[in-house]
Amino acid sequence: MNKNTEAAVGIMNPFGVDIDLATGDMPGAKNHLVRRASDMRGYYVDAAALTRLIDQGDPVHYEVFEVPVPEQGGQLMYCISRLLPGVVGDEFWMTKGHYHTISATAEIYLCLRGTGYMLMKTADGRSAAEPMSRGRMVYVPPHWAHRSVNTGGEPLVSFCVYPGEAGHNYGDIATEGFPQRVFLRNGRAVIE
Amino acid sequence: MNKNTEAAVGIMNPFGVDIDLATGDMPGAKNHLVRRASDMRGYYVDAAALTRLIDQGDPVHYEVFEVPVPEQGGQLMYCISRLLPGVVGDEFWMTKGHYHTISATAEIYLCLRGTGYMLMKTADGRSAAEPMSRGRMVYVPPHWAHRSVNTGGEPLVSFCVYPGEAGHNYGDIATEGFPQRVFLRNGRAVIE
Repeated sequence: MNKNTEAAVGIMNPFGVDIDLATGDMPGAKNHLVRRASDMRGYYVDAAALTRLIDQGDPVHYEVFEVPVPEQGGQLMYCISRLLPGVVGDEFWMTKGHYHTISATAEIYLCLRGTGYMLMKTADGRSAAEPMSRGRMVYVPPHWAHRSVNTGGEPLVSFCVYPGEAGHNYGDIATEGFPQRVFLRNGRAVIE
Repeated sequence: MNKNTEAAVGIMNPFGVDIDLATGDMPGAKNHLVRRASDMRGYYVDAAALTRLIDQGDPVHYEVFEVPVPEQGGQLMYCISRLLPGVVGDEFWMTKGHYHTISATAEIYLCLRGTGYMLMKTADGRSAAEPMSRGRMVYVPPHWAHRSVNTGGEPLVSFCVYPGEAGHNYGDIATEGFPQRVFLRNGRAVIE
């Protein structure tokens, strides 16, 4: 971009946001995405258990909080992801998971609270699982779809950063799923 | 990038890194940049005071720890920045500060420990200062040079993320400086 273009579009101002590093609360968040149990139809093995959960009040599954910046290359999108604890049948609550629309873009998750896994997969069949707990930073490289799973008793909260141009592609995961799932077996979290 | 190119260059594997969210310690860091007082010649108003500091043992001024990823678009560089407390004459210790080589790239600083300021400036003369303390996230937008200043009694530690293609341009700051500086005046930090 040359100087004339800059002058035309303007240079945005710096800003600061407070984040509670113990809880992940970000009181200044302007966007608040909520996914309830009813948004998760088709994602769990036990569809009947999910239907019961929806009938019993359709609880919030996970939330994303952000202070938006322009979705452009060179910017950095960031958010707080908050996944609540629970099971659908024997399967731990999880996020839908997504590729980035521009697949060749990474994402960083810095876990602030809770325990779980980041499940990841590539379109050509590779799969990975990284444990998450407070202070663990997971690097999701370019081309890896990613989904978090809460295996603990409290919210799984992460501070996330990704390139401004990345975008979200949920559709491919809705049809492909992930090769790995995380179940509660005899009181333990087991990846199968 | 098409599939054939991907197969040729390979898709990197996910990984995790532990960060102590109280201290910023990242034991798995592979790169460790150290800037001592002697690296800061020309940056402070009181050159004689800096020379005395160098003569008295040339203490570490700041350190950067990182687990490197490829410096390419779509990747996210991240690091722990640790700026020690002190004054050179009446001026609080600070980092050199830099633009990004690709100027139109942002950076995120999530402060984990300490107190201070992020000083920022644009090439066309705008200036800004954002306070930093534990839990404060500062968004440095594209085109803003940035320098941190430690005004407290303990290390100022931040978790930083920036786009893989950004690069560092220290030269322009070495010649231009910043329009604002932070001094200790009657026991208080004052921006002048």
